Amino acid sequence: MYRTHNCGELRIEDVNKEVTLCGWVQKTRDKGGMIWIDLRDRYGLTQLIFEEGETAADLIEKARNVGREFVIRCSGKVVERFSKNENVATGDIEIKPTQFEILNASQVPPFIIEDETDGGEDLRMKYRYLDLRRNPVRKNMQLRHQMLKETRNYLDGIDFIEVETPVLIKSTPEGARDFVVPSRIHHGEFYALPQSPQTFKQLLMVSGFDKYFQIVKCFRDEDLRADRQPEFTQIDCEMSFVTRDDVLNTFEGLVRHLFQEVKGIDIGDFPRMSYADAMKYYGSDKPDTRFEMKFAELNEVAQGKGFNVFDSAELVVGINAKGCGEYSRKQLDALTDFVKRPQIGAKGLVYVKCNADGSFKSSVDKFYGQDDLKEWAEKFGAEPGDLLLVLSGEKQHTRNALSELRLHMGDILGLRDKDKFSTLWVVDFPLLEWDEETNRYHAMHHPFTSPNLEDMELLDKDPGAVRANAYDMVINGTEVGGGSIRIHDKEMQKTMFRHLGFTDDEAKEQFGFLMEAFEFGAPPHGGIAFGFDRLCSLFGGSDSIRDFIAFPKNNAGRDVMINSPSTIDSDQLDELGLDLKKIEV
Amino acid sequence: MYRTHNCGELRIEDVNKEVTLCGWVQKTRDKGGMIWIDLRDRYGLTQLIFEEGETAADLIEKARNVGREFVIRCSGKVVERFSKNENVATGDIEIKPTQFEILNASQVPPFIIEDETDGGEDLRMKYRYLDLRRNPVRKNMQLRHQMLKETRNYLDGIDFIEVETPVLIKSTPEGARDFVVPSRIHHGEFYALPQSPQTFKQLLMVSGFDKYFQIVKCFRDEDLRADRQPEFTQIDCEMSFVTRDDVLNTFEGLVRHLFQEVKGIDIGDFPRMSYADAMKYYGSDKPDTRFEMKFAELNEVAQGKGFNVFDSAELVVGINAKGCGEYSRKQLDALTDFVKRPQIGAKGLVYVKCNADGSFKSSVDKFYGQDDLKEWAEKFGAEPGDLLLVLSGEKQHTRNALSELRLHMGDILGLRDKDKFSTLWVVDFPLLEWDEETNRYHAMHHPFTSPNLEDMELLDKDPGAVRANAYDMVINGTEVGGGSIRIHDKEMQKTMFRHLGFTDDEAKEQFGFLMEAFEFGAPPHGGIAFGFDRLCSLFGGSDSIRDFIAFPKNNAGRDVMINSPSTIDSDQLDELGLDLKKIEV
Repeated sequence: MYRTHNCGELRIEDVNKEVTLCGWVQKTRDKGGMIWIDLRDRYGLTQLIFEEGETAADLIEKARNVGREFVIRCSGKVVERFSKNENVATGDIEIKPTQFEILNASQVPPFIIEDETDGGEDLRMKYRYLDLRRNPVRKNMQLRHQMLKETRNYLDGIDFIEVETPVLIKSTPEGARDFVVPSRIHHGEFYALPQSPQTFKQLLMVSGFDKYFQIVKCFRDEDLRADRQPEFTQIDCEMSFVTRDDVLNTFEGLVRHLFQEVKGIDIGDFPRMSYADAMKYYGSDKPDTRFEMKFAELNEVAQGKGFNVFDSAELVVGINAKGCGEYSRKQLDALTDFVKRPQIGAKGLVYVKCNADGSFKSSVDKFYGQDDLKEWAEKFGAEPGDLLLVLSGEKQHTRNALSELRLHMGDILGLRDKDKFSTLWVVDFPLLEWDEETNRYHAMHHPFTSPNLEDMELLDKDPGAVRANAYDMVINGTEVGGGSIRIHDKEMQKTMFRHLGFTDDEAKEQFGFLMEAFEFGAPPHGGIAFGFDRLCSLFGGSDSIRDFIAFPKNNAGRDVMINSPSTIDSDQLDELGLDLKKIEV
Repeated sequence: MYRTHNCGELRIEDVNKEVTLCGWVQKTRDKGGMIWIDLRDRYGLTQLIFEEGETAADLIEKARNVGREFVIRCSGKVVERFSKNENVATGDIEIKPTQFEILNASQVPPFIIEDETDGGEDLRMKYRYLDLRRNPVRKNMQLRHQMLKETRNYLDGIDFIEVETPVLIKSTPEGARDFVVPSRIHHGEFYALPQSPQTFKQLLMVSGFDKYFQIVKCFRDEDLRADRQPEFTQIDCEMSFVTRDDVLNTFEGLVRHLFQEVKGIDIGDFPRMSYADAMKYYGSDKPDTRFEMKFAELNEVAQGKGFNVFDSAELVVGINAKGCGEYSRKQLDALTDFVKRPQIGAKGLVYVKCNADGSFKSSVDKFYGQDDLKEWAEKFGAEPGDLLLVLSGEKQHTRNALSELRLHMGDILGLRDKDKFSTLWVVDFPLLEWDEETNRYHAMHHPFTSPNLEDMELLDKDPGAVRANAYDMVINGTEVGGGSIRIHDKEMQKTMFRHLGFTDDEAKEQFGFLMEAFEFGAPPHGGIAFGFDRLCSLFGGSDSIRDFIAFPKNNAGRDVMINSPSTIDSDQLDELGLDLKKIEV
């Protein structure tokens, strides 16, 4: 037994107890005759006090020589503090040491181990084990643990079984790129790491497991963008004998439970919105619904008045920035610059100010009279003091651009508070999407997603119009999970593979075992997968998933702490039957 | 909503309710005017009854045409059964169908989906998703789920934090062979899959996480033996500021909790035995303590009597097979054959029968008189009717052989009941073991294990005699977990690497980040890891871990269901900068 208590638990009631604590030196203050040491562990901070005349001289000498992050073991009596510290849970007491032992010394850390640190990201990644000592980072990991625990509590409580599916599986060309693992025993053959346990969870439904979940690592060898990780964690779920609403209700319940238990928030019911409406009113399939600012389409009232830009546009659409009617020339120019940035790519921005006196002032006054603009304003339900911002052009492109402008205005107007949460189901996604590069349709979700039966006749005539039994959960404009009702019929699955451009042989080669399983009584089933890292970062009020991963990789897929990936011995390559490709000069 | 109830929950109290069930056809019985269908799901079986005159004719027609494993949806009224079945939880009731729908047909399965099946192992592995439908296999997975859940409940309840460590890490030559993952972005470089999160959990201790656990997949690219899997699951744990006894008490508590919650067994306290005693009394570092049959060493009483085989032996040692004194010539010959098998390799077996009249009959009567044999018998505490079995030779080899004979006698005498559990800690393992092949010492546990400080002076003089702060948990002769108190001091770790034959550069190259971490205040720490698959199989009363893995690989490391590993496209190899080695003709 190294200690009797941790550094976070002693209170005024413990005064006069003899205790032993262990921890790290957070800081020392030496005022000559008095030395204070703040001792830190995972649970909190406790103050040690060394006083000339009161404390043994050798202990004072030792205390004087410890530095930040030294590991200490200290025994002594709990005493009431003279000046209490209300900001610390142990702030009523301190320890008068009778024993004091340095368990391990420490070099001066490369950055300060405090809530606010002076260490840059690269340095903190290299010394991640020191960064994890800082309260905010450690608390993120504790939040993650609590999320894991409450997820399991909820799902276990409604009869879900956690089943571990294999990590060494089979490579499939569909979807993103696999990481592969060469087999030493079977030269020239490879395992692949799973991008998701999709086929295994469907096989478990064929097995009659009824309700499956797993919190599981998945892998994608993609060119990394900011805040993507090659390995990530999913809450992976599947249920049998369910309709779409059964799945939505079950997992809405999961996230409601998490909000309640982890954040103490009653998040209420989740509104549902069709993909078509999400695109029409927010220009996005993951709208941030913390604020309204819905799109209003103006084709009807803005076209045919001689303004060629609008007349030739597929879509004229705008938002109402409430209360921004007094924006200056400079502010309006900044918004125009924003939408003209290459990432957004609008040609220009039309504005209409709704003046306090009921009149309007717009950038297109030449083409539109007061009555015209009044008609516009009615479309937005605009009031005096509001500012209408209007874009036009090709439909999809214009919606995307206006969606970015809407989020930007939300930021400017402080409508995107990280402590406020707005949830949403987006449903009725398209089944297929056209891929310009390969010149064929791709499954928007994945090839096992079932089509909406009402739309089946469109599958040949107008594949892009077929709706899928697919859904996403969106919180604060972030997609946190997505899933679908699956195809459970072999013939339907074959049809789908055909529409996705698989030959029968390719389908059999890649998914033969699933197709075969469907011959033996597959139940109707569906499921969902949540991006657990993202869900944690959202609950933690952060934009970065890296803050919620204990040992993340950087944007080049590298772990700079352990220096991985790295070269391996040529013997190892020989054993695997592999050569490195010669680089041609 | 596909169903109102599952197939396991309806009882006599539910009579007259209108219900809808879904499930698989377990079997049908057609007696002309009556048809019964047993409908199965994960939760149980419910009987449907179709009766001419009572049930609509079209439903009867449909019922007549369903086969085994068809997926069915059926609505109807719950009625009391005429002849009840006490062996089934729903045996008091049956359903009179008013609606009957085939959700999916099934081909005839390749083996019978019942508790006892006619399918051989290979066939069941290929159609694992059908094997998982069988009650015994499904129950194994449910047991595994419960073990996962109760492990987490216990550890969470005593402040352990579950932290996910990375799967894509760095290859290290020490220990077993790594699986590697080629990096596409950094050609010629590789990630490795973890054999255990050992270094990460030690870094988490440096980070002050205090109590860590993780239930985690680990990987070893070994030549597979029976009942080894290339990927396996560990309960991985680590604690700071602990002595050996703190660790033993904590994890004894975990396994006690599992026995209580999962099996309803109070397993009591775990005895502790030194490695030296385990070897001396059981000839094994993982003795099966479900039965006594301890070794007795006979050098003192058996040497110097002119029997050259014993006189020239390093060790003469035997066991007492209680009550086997009447064994026939044939039985004794069979035991001799057993110990002479090449895997065991004894030269011969000496026996002494303790006759009912107090006399002795031995295979070495020529050298030993009745008084000599009486002395032997006293060493064993033998009684009339017992049989002493004695081996001799080089110490380690003889102990191994006698250990095998002891287990064999335990089997013969029915002393190894799978429903009886005997637990044990084996402690004070040697720190180092000599490896004949490489002609140097290896870490018996791993290179981070701390030596017993009392033995430090032996490190140079007699390295093999140094004891480690290492321990194994043994249940019924199976090592279910092992761990150690770690080295937390950089200088000690350097000394250890030197003794293991690492140059400073090699140690730095491979473990540099851990060595560096120890510069910044590492706390004293220690931990343990449990083989979770093995623990589940032990709780489930099975010898095979494969029975407790949803989708296991075969002994050649192959998943015969999905056919993995498999070849990949040459494009994929190009992207990875790899060539398959040409096979030389």
